[in-house]
Amino acid sequence: MTRGFKIPKRVTTEIDFEGEVIKIDAEVPEQEPEPIPEDKKLNIIGKKVPRINGEEIVTGKAKYAFDINLPGMLYGKVLRSPHPHANILNIDMSKAEKHPGVRAVINLNKKNVRYVGEEIAAVAAVNEEIAEEALDLIEVEYEKLPFVVNINRAMEPGAPRVSPDGNISKPRTRERGNIEDGFKEADVVLERTYKTQVEVHNCAEVHGSVAKWDGEKVTVWDTTQATHGVRRSLAKTLQLPESNVRVINHYMGGGFGSKLGLNVHTVAAVNLSKIAGAPVKIMLTRKEESYCVGNRPGTIQTLKGGAKKDGTITAFHYKSHNNGGVGSGGSNASPIWDMYQCPNCLIEESSVYTNTDASRPMRAPGYPQGTFSVDLFLDELAENLGMDPLELRRKNYTTKNRGGTGTPYSSKGLDKCYELGAQRIGWNRRNKKPGEGKGPIKRGIGMASEIWGGSGGPGTQLDFRLITDGVVEIRCGTQDIGTGTYTIIAQVAAEELGIDIKDIKVMIGDSDYPRSGSSGGSNTAASVCPAIRAAAADIKGKLFAIAGPLLGENPEELDVGESKIFVRNNKSKSISFKEACKQITEGMLTSNETRGPNPKGYAFSTFGAHFSEVEVNTLTGKVKVIRHVAAHESGRSINILTSENQIQGGTVQGLSYAFFEQRIMDEQTGKMINSNYYDYKTPTAMDTPQIEPIIIDSVDPVLNNLGMKGLGEPPRIPSHAAMANAIYNAIGVWIRELPITPDKVLAALEERKEG
Amino acid sequence: MTRGFKIPKRVTTEIDFEGEVIKIDAEVPEQEPEPIPEDKKLNIIGKKVPRINGEEIVTGKAKYAFDINLPGMLYGKVLRSPHPHANILNIDMSKAEKHPGVRAVINLNKKNVRYVGEEIAAVAAVNEEIAEEALDLIEVEYEKLPFVVNINRAMEPGAPRVSPDGNISKPRTRERGNIEDGFKEADVVLERTYKTQVEVHNCAEVHGSVAKWDGEKVTVWDTTQATHGVRRSLAKTLQLPESNVRVINHYMGGGFGSKLGLNVHTVAAVNLSKIAGAPVKIMLTRKEESYCVGNRPGTIQTLKGGAKKDGTITAFHYKSHNNGGVGSGGSNASPIWDMYQCPNCLIEESSVYTNTDASRPMRAPGYPQGTFSVDLFLDELAENLGMDPLELRRKNYTTKNRGGTGTPYSSKGLDKCYELGAQRIGWNRRNKKPGEGKGPIKRGIGMASEIWGGSGGPGTQLDFRLITDGVVEIRCGTQDIGTGTYTIIAQVAAEELGIDIKDIKVMIGDSDYPRSGSSGGSNTAASVCPAIRAAAADIKGKLFAIAGPLLGENPEELDVGESKIFVRNNKSKSISFKEACKQITEGMLTSNETRGPNPKGYAFSTFGAHFSEVEVNTLTGKVKVIRHVAAHESGRSINILTSENQIQGGTVQGLSYAFFEQRIMDEQTGKMINSNYYDYKTPTAMDTPQIEPIIIDSVDPVLNNLGMKGLGEPPRIPSHAAMANAIYNAIGVWIRELPITPDKVLAALEERKEG
Repeated sequence: MTRGFKIPKRVTTEIDFEGEVIKIDAEVPEQEPEPIPEDKKLNIIGKKVPRINGEEIVTGKAKYAFDINLPGMLYGKVLRSPHPHANILNIDMSKAEKHPGVRAVINLNKKNVRYVGEEIAAVAAVNEEIAEEALDLIEVEYEKLPFVVNINRAMEPGAPRVSPDGNISKPRTRERGNIEDGFKEADVVLERTYKTQVEVHNCAEVHGSVAKWDGEKVTVWDTTQATHGVRRSLAKTLQLPESNVRVINHYMGGGFGSKLGLNVHTVAAVNLSKIAGAPVKIMLTRKEESYCVGNRPGTIQTLKGGAKKDGTITAFHYKSHNNGGVGSGGSNASPIWDMYQCPNCLIEESSVYTNTDASRPMRAPGYPQGTFSVDLFLDELAENLGMDPLELRRKNYTTKNRGGTGTPYSSKGLDKCYELGAQRIGWNRRNKKPGEGKGPIKRGIGMASEIWGGSGGPGTQLDFRLITDGVVEIRCGTQDIGTGTYTIIAQVAAEELGIDIKDIKVMIGDSDYPRSGSSGGSNTAASVCPAIRAAAADIKGKLFAIAGPLLGENPEELDVGESKIFVRNNKSKSISFKEACKQITEGMLTSNETRGPNPKGYAFSTFGAHFSEVEVNTLTGKVKVIRHVAAHESGRSINILTSENQIQGGTVQGLSYAFFEQRIMDEQTGKMINSNYYDYKTPTAMDTPQIEPIIIDSVDPVLNNLGMKGLGEPPRIPSHAAMANAIYNAIGVWIRELPITPDKVLAALEERKEG
Repeated sequence: MTRGFKIPKRVTTEIDFEGEVIKIDAEVPEQEPEPIPEDKKLNIIGKKVPRINGEEIVTGKAKYAFDINLPGMLYGKVLRSPHPHANILNIDMSKAEKHPGVRAVINLNKKNVRYVGEEIAAVAAVNEEIAEEALDLIEVEYEKLPFVVNINRAMEPGAPRVSPDGNISKPRTRERGNIEDGFKEADVVLERTYKTQVEVHNCAEVHGSVAKWDGEKVTVWDTTQATHGVRRSLAKTLQLPESNVRVINHYMGGGFGSKLGLNVHTVAAVNLSKIAGAPVKIMLTRKEESYCVGNRPGTIQTLKGGAKKDGTITAFHYKSHNNGGVGSGGSNASPIWDMYQCPNCLIEESSVYTNTDASRPMRAPGYPQGTFSVDLFLDELAENLGMDPLELRRKNYTTKNRGGTGTPYSSKGLDKCYELGAQRIGWNRRNKKPGEGKGPIKRGIGMASEIWGGSGGPGTQLDFRLITDGVVEIRCGTQDIGTGTYTIIAQVAAEELGIDIKDIKVMIGDSDYPRSGSSGGSNTAASVCPAIRAAAADIKGKLFAIAGPLLGENPEELDVGESKIFVRNNKSKSISFKEACKQITEGMLTSNETRGPNPKGYAFSTFGAHFSEVEVNTLTGKVKVIRHVAAHESGRSINILTSENQIQGGTVQGLSYAFFEQRIMDEQTGKMINSNYYDYKTPTAMDTPQIEPIIIDSVDPVLNNLGMKGLGEPPRIPSHAAMANAIYNAIGVWIRELPITPDKVLAALEERKEG
């Protein structure tokens, strides 16, 4: 039967429809270009390409949300709870409303607040000072309630209740095999406890939103990792069609997960703007940025593991308590569950609720925590077995997920990371006996492994145009959260079309462009780039259909390069790309081709190994990282420069997690006492070692048309664990709690002496 | 061989490449949805649907170029030549530049001006008054030259030369058969001369542009029928990539051809804005609108024709001289060349150059002129043959173009127009003997035929999105020049998807949307609507692929209607459209499908016949049109209300052409002396008869997926000729020169009495 339409691509998904999971797998023709062979010489992909908009950024021309200033714009401020736990008995906003210069006041109608900083009301005024004054004029009558901000205290019997169901959630468990059997098989069994601190995202750019209404439509300039996600959530909140909401985010100064999802201050700006009839800007202060926009949960993790004499791991039993504040504590278990061969595994994880800001995904949520325990544990296990720690990891290497019991990885270059990383750091230089060095300053070398997802997926929609003047315009609702999305998009399009990157205009960060997913989970590059390539290939085909007759050749025989279209077997027969474009009689060629779904039957992960060399001053307890080698396999790298930047940035964040950062709560007041850049320590350039990235630039053989995976989160995962293992190698004592501050080093050394 | 791309549609075009015409016809799979069967019951297509943005327009919310006011905006004015022909010896702009409030002055570097109103320089100032003052301060030294503004004078030997090659262009000729043979076969041969006036477009909204630079990018709000065309021309002029130029035109108050192409004042606004570093607005005055933005050429046409006794036309010889001002006089010949069966035909047309503003396409360029001669001629020929004029037309009816010698029309409903129009007006009521009525007030009935193109074609690019909330967003670079494009786009999408028109958001009139062609030649609807349907069908198919599994049915078996997706053979098995949309896991479905090329082997034209009843006061010479029946066949009508509006508007313009409008030039000064609404006469509501549209709502069997043709220009073509023929039927004297003013009527009556 002939139908009045054509189903143009494979739709493969599982959806939850009225409680029933339905598999969708409709038949459609193949649209994807074939993968680029690994040995093909490429012009711009896989090179060190500077940011195409670098000049705009460094010269201040790039418009961040903070830079949006509109005629008649008002300034908004949010009233936040000064109490960690209280009932709100009454709010009187009348004085604030009458304050000269105030244009709108809104009450968020909270009956109860559960952490310091929770939003209660908001105001908009002609300037920030008046808005601040108005906040002071809002009279809130609180009934203070008992509270707890410390994870240990929260777990004590009789602690003030944060959640009506108690402060410790029912454990989320995962199990395979039988750990009792596993431990019976083991020759060595250890159990150790590891602790990690609460870390805040601390973006260089604070959160903020500028809202402007035009009739029933609202435009929001927002600091967000999810341009389309915020549009959808906001539309739902405002009960408007999505088409009436536009979210713009052309530039962003870091998000790390804290800028996923719709924020209360954004909704406040939108509502204040509606009431006031004028645009409203709310930018958070550094203080608010520190304690009101999420954090990485602190953890108390206990890992019990067993191994045979030859190093074969027989069982893991992992228990963790994660401080999620008033939210979820999340999960840290994947590095334990997936990374090493292990047939018997039991995971038990509980959230612990405290009267602090809800946790939020932070660069590789859970993985740095889990890696800290498993990689320190493995080093200690290796010592007990009399094995080299790297050999122990190699012994338990697996090419399937779920600790060797699951699905094969599409590609896994961790072995190469081990080989090249060990070679680069000089692994054989490490102390045979930990702490054996002479004198008060000891050196040591350690390592840790990394696993993460980042395979990307379908869901990027495009509007790809080739204009008669030979310029490409790409519109896509993805965003650049500081990671270089603009540049890699341009690279892929320029490569596929064989033209200069200057002729690719990339327009992203606007929900008026076709939808693309959030930038999270290291999925942006591997979702967007293959879609760009598919659309560019589609456009190329359309252009070949024009160029073929011009050259008197079958379009199938054409290829591109050096801004020319040429005959594949006779390169001298060519016409310039721009000349061919002039012949586009319809003015432009367009495509909305996109990538297909990931193939079935594979697990997709990225891998890496970090090797660190440290120097510990045993008199002062101060640790200095001397060198850090970071080897990563994330499939094909589109831009080596950007990949290296990610590795360096991730490693520095790991260094910071290892030695500097921690949120400190005052147990008397429930307030964060280091909510500023001075007291909340992060490393400076002087604290940062030489970081040597190694990019295993392989090509995933089955995953998407570029064989690429993500690299946003991976470098953040293992560095602190490699450093901690290096410290042990230097001084022969374990420090199992982060951050590793001089006092902890000295105390551990002291304990060892005593012990 | 497997290729890394897919050639996704048929590319059929002829292009001029390095002087060689190359046919492109590349093989691609069919993407078009099948035509809707003529008998299918439709919900919203073919109904009287009010404008979806009617409220915006009538409440003043719609933003026209004039409504754009930007912070810091300056006002521009153009210095125009006061002389019809002069050399420019010197321009001194220094005083203007120093005038307080002036921000930029530009010299257009003209050495010569050839008509009053030609652009010489432009200024931008903080307000319009200062800009006007500055114009007066620009000192131009002219050397005045002889000039001619009258077509008859221009053709005289020794007349001042407008063009170096003489004032009469070499005739453009077309010929078929042999007219000498044709005239030999004829029993009756007549030769008559017809004259038409120069008419100006006189849009309710004057031309204007607002230009705003942002770095290397410029945005122009322009009154234009060619959003993308102006973008391309402007980019070429400024030597910028097209991507750096954005042209916006969300609403427009009439163009009629005068708003095609890039205008000098637009370039001036852009350049002034660049120099001043601020936005610049230039809106023309009514006076400038009257004499500087084009016109319909005046003509002197001589038509010689022969026919056999039975009415068979044997030959036409048509000569025309068209006053194109300093531009081309165009062609009027198509109604003579194509419309009636005629094997022998010779066309000779010359432009006559005068020192007046260049002509520009005006609603059905040339056709009202050509129709005036051929339809009056046929009536006179019929009388000579003793035949009914309508019978003579039926006798020479043809279903092929080129007067029956060419390609068959895909559809031609002119016979139905004749039948229904004659019936409605009461054709048998006409005077058997012209002028036979008693008393000083005489009535008569006349008719005329219409042919025009308007088949549309490929070239509309789309960005069509279906969002999870069930709302459709359509972005397309076409424009609504007042004709209702927004509404018909929404209708077609709503029909194809079976949903409420309120859920279709139409975004057009912005070159940031994918390219669509100019709105000219009655091609907008028939180009855009089939593309919309193709994209909607594509989206529907994608949605069926999701809905099929939900309903447990093959997607091929589904259909839409009443905001539901249902099983074709079991309507009760359905899910709501919005519910299905919620399951779009990728957030939105997108399509950039578009219509294919028109099929080969056919000629495509629209047809119509107007029937007019007039009352002539033989004492005053005043003519009153009593009733006017306008029957049109343009394939399927998408919106009956809009089609009727077009017919009424076109008929009123024809009435105006028949009796009111003419540009009057002062031969002493070379200036237009009626460049305002008071002196340049147009009809008021009181002058307008009852107009009765008859829409032959047939479906073209091969043309595009909706079987539709255009209706923008057709109603403008025959009305004045029908009125002139009715006057003859009333009073028995021919008035062969437009406009038919009372003095001409009285003079003709006088002449008849004398004769």
